Amino acid sequence: MLRSFATRNLLRSFARQSRNYSVKLTSESYDVKRGNYASLTESDVQYFNSILSANNILQDKEDLLFYNEDWMRKYRGSSQLVLKPKTTEQVSQILKHCNERNLAVVPQGGNTGLVGGSIPVFDEIVLSVANLNKVRSFDEVSGILVTDAGVILENADKFVEGHGYIFPLDLGAKGSCHVGGVVATNAGGLRLLRYGSLHGTVLGLEVVLADGTIVNNLSTLRKDNTGYDLKQLFIGSEGTLGVVTGVSILCPPRPTAVNVAFLGLESFEQVQRAFVKAKKELGEVLSAFECMDNTSQSIVEEHTDLSRPLSEQYPFYVLIETSGSNKEHDDAKLETFLENAMTEEIVVDGVVAQDSTEIANLWQWRELIPEALGKGGGVYKYDVSIPLPQLYDLVVDVNKRLIEAGVVGDTPEYPVIATAGYGHIGDGNLHLNVPVRFYDKKVEKLLEPFVYEWISKVSGSISAEHGLGFAKRNYIGYSKDEQLISLMKGVKNMLDPKKILNPYKYI
Amino acid sequence: MLRSFATRNLLRSFARQSRNYSVKLTSESYDVKRGNYASLTESDVQYFNSILSANNILQDKEDLLFYNEDWMRKYRGSSQLVLKPKTTEQVSQILKHCNERNLAVVPQGGNTGLVGGSIPVFDEIVLSVANLNKVRSFDEVSGILVTDAGVILENADKFVEGHGYIFPLDLGAKGSCHVGGVVATNAGGLRLLRYGSLHGTVLGLEVVLADGTIVNNLSTLRKDNTGYDLKQLFIGSEGTLGVVTGVSILCPPRPTAVNVAFLGLESFEQVQRAFVKAKKELGEVLSAFECMDNTSQSIVEEHTDLSRPLSEQYPFYVLIETSGSNKEHDDAKLETFLENAMTEEIVVDGVVAQDSTEIANLWQWRELIPEALGKGGGVYKYDVSIPLPQLYDLVVDVNKRLIEAGVVGDTPEYPVIATAGYGHIGDGNLHLNVPVRFYDKKVEKLLEPFVYEWISKVSGSISAEHGLGFAKRNYIGYSKDEQLISLMKGVKNMLDPKKILNPYKYI
Repeated sequence: MLRSFATRNLLRSFARQSRNYSVKLTSESYDVKRGNYASLTESDVQYFNSILSANNILQDKEDLLFYNEDWMRKYRGSSQLVLKPKTTEQVSQILKHCNERNLAVVPQGGNTGLVGGSIPVFDEIVLSVANLNKVRSFDEVSGILVTDAGVILENADKFVEGHGYIFPLDLGAKGSCHVGGVVATNAGGLRLLRYGSLHGTVLGLEVVLADGTIVNNLSTLRKDNTGYDLKQLFIGSEGTLGVVTGVSILCPPRPTAVNVAFLGLESFEQVQRAFVKAKKELGEVLSAFECMDNTSQSIVEEHTDLSRPLSEQYPFYVLIETSGSNKEHDDAKLETFLENAMTEEIVVDGVVAQDSTEIANLWQWRELIPEALGKGGGVYKYDVSIPLPQLYDLVVDVNKRLIEAGVVGDTPEYPVIATAGYGHIGDGNLHLNVPVRFYDKKVEKLLEPFVYEWISKVSGSISAEHGLGFAKRNYIGYSKDEQLISLMKGVKNMLDPKKILNPYKYI
Repeated sequence: MLRSFATRNLLRSFARQSRNYSVKLTSESYDVKRGNYASLTESDVQYFNSILSANNILQDKEDLLFYNEDWMRKYRGSSQLVLKPKTTEQVSQILKHCNERNLAVVPQGGNTGLVGGSIPVFDEIVLSVANLNKVRSFDEVSGILVTDAGVILENADKFVEGHGYIFPLDLGAKGSCHVGGVVATNAGGLRLLRYGSLHGTVLGLEVVLADGTIVNNLSTLRKDNTGYDLKQLFIGSEGTLGVVTGVSILCPPRPTAVNVAFLGLESFEQVQRAFVKAKKELGEVLSAFECMDNTSQSIVEEHTDLSRPLSEQYPFYVLIETSGSNKEHDDAKLETFLENAMTEEIVVDGVVAQDSTEIANLWQWRELIPEALGKGGGVYKYDVSIPLPQLYDLVVDVNKRLIEAGVVGDTPEYPVIATAGYGHIGDGNLHLNVPVRFYDKKVEKLLEPFVYEWISKVSGSISAEHGLGFAKRNYIGYSKDEQLISLMKGVKNMLDPKKILNPYKYI
């Protein structure tokens, strides 16, 4: 709650303002062939009218715009129909009909994804869960929240805050994204280091399968060893196996004390040493360990009027956050850690925020990176997991490759501005970003498949938290072998044999 | 590491000494019909001899005893062959052969389960992973451990302790159970409150499927959103979908300070208030919140020579453990919590351990319960999850029902000694135990299906952490509906179409 603002929301409003140019259709940009699905007929619409009230059926072209385009304006579909059911039963009726009629469907949450996963590619029906927006129950003793899928993440967090709890996941897009969407995409975000992944915190799901079957696994139990944990399949399935309509999740007590320190370090080795030290000395109160290279910070400096937190520049910066139940104790732990880290020359320089404004200011140096990197024209973005010791090597290698190819420079004729690396280092998750003045086939060819092959060699993941969606659908093979992919196809085939759910994406 | 000893290991040695009577065959006790599997032939054994060295193939009756019986001596099979492969490749060759030949197989770890899940029912081949016992790798920076499935839990924990980390799961049976076994059964245990479930901490698995396919998903990445998270299916599948041969798991930094307090409370409502308060005030250092009723404590007192920690008796006791990185801070937090809890009259009385011996002594009052309850003759045991507010009502209702039926008394003619409740209250997990002087059909009929129906009504789980195995195979319907069970069967059918893996169990 102390972050100054939600970056992605800013970007969204920016995108909204510049609607004067139109995004190319995904199917044309990427040369996709329409699947053998039925086309929407008047009688289909009549059927949906018999289920939903008129204001929950959108057919007007202007109304459809939001649902047909992603917020980055990279992907555009040509859906003719958006359905906004208000109950799980309605979702079930809709899917049953679509399955029988062989009509393709794209489930959509807050439409804040980064890989085009919730945008139609052709004329798929958009099934928005935005109207499933009620908190169902909350248990004050256990901290277990049960909510509709369409509740906005920030609202869910505010709701549990009122009871002294915190939603165990936080994201830049929290003001727009849905609880169901973060579950369906297995979002990571800013609290994963502390509260773990959704595979651990989600206790139950209500899901509607492609054929309309309502799977009720909305357990409010922390432990339940009765059979295969099927809900796990839907976490991160990006709407390809079913539509998440309800979520049960364990919320931890809300920390009452928050500290943030911003540190300068000489090398990525020192970053790693600082991480091990922070885990040991800050232990249970460590809640974020974010790393930014100097390139990413210079670009933030260039595109904002913020003053750098540290007077000198360093190759690497680390933002450390502690969240605990006792301010005095947390202050003492942080102070000891910083003293030791300075004495041992792991950290060269650093500042500690004195109040919530300063905390917000320091966070900006991490949170404004994506926006700042985009200001030069465009960005090639990779969101990858790499074993920690090799993590930053990818940035070094890509930078070297681009420089050697002569595409990096300070003047307008060079496409590449720089190569920047930053991310949730505590989770082994790097955001490799290549800001460019203009998109260029040559640069693209230098980056791909080079980046994917590099990641594959170190058994990394080509998508740490953003998912596969449309953007990464062809690259899963770099992170998963044939056996695994074939098993995944088996699961898809079992749950959605007609493949009506979110086609042209994922696997 | 501060617990005084592993209760289950004590019990095991007790069971070993009393081998003079023989356990009835499971198939006869429970009237099971053998499946349509092939029978072992000399040429099968010859084939296995071509893969494994002679000392890893057991056929001698005496040698087979350990593998054919569970440690509680409740279940017995009549396997004629135990195979102990040393490599994943050997596991693959064995399963491929068994699948082709239609030979049934029981995967077995440390054989410490409570529901007969790893014991053959008929002549299934026992596939022991005990010889897959090497740590594969450990990353000092991330704390990620990769290990063979057959590594004993305590050894894995000792290994990571040497690097300042802790295995994120602890169990009474840690001296015998395997890492692979705890994963295959989704064990809960004593650290779940703090470190969460294995669905969150396990990062990757290597699994051999029924047909011998080696599924390599042994990721060492904390975040990976490339495709369905299939490893989750195997966590808690109890050997029915594949044989876990390798585990990758995230280990947290080892706490350097541990405190234990033992409290007396007047009602289960106060227990719940104490839990909420402990979560808030002890926050990030709370690592255990165990509750015991007075019945369970009286029985421990009767069967041991321990003196009660508190001079007066109370209806409920709570054991609170904190684990943190700074003893001084943890002491202060605990002191404040206890002061407030006493002032607010949530807690009536309490003691705090002053050293590791006292910590161990206090833990005994929780850990000796299962053994003590068994001393009177036998125990009807239920391991259930129930929404916290209703959790203890089950004990009250069962007790009332048994008393009203006239089966409870202090003299030898009454089968039931008492009704006791205790457990990992912080996880909503109750162990309902009915200690008896002798097993009695009338008591059994009073308990079942009453207990299961009661749990079903409050949407609880009839098996919180022990699993289904053989013992609970028929009761899953009380916790999961038909849709879910049918999906589970679909998964089983996909991964093990000939049903050679761990038959007669689970679903």
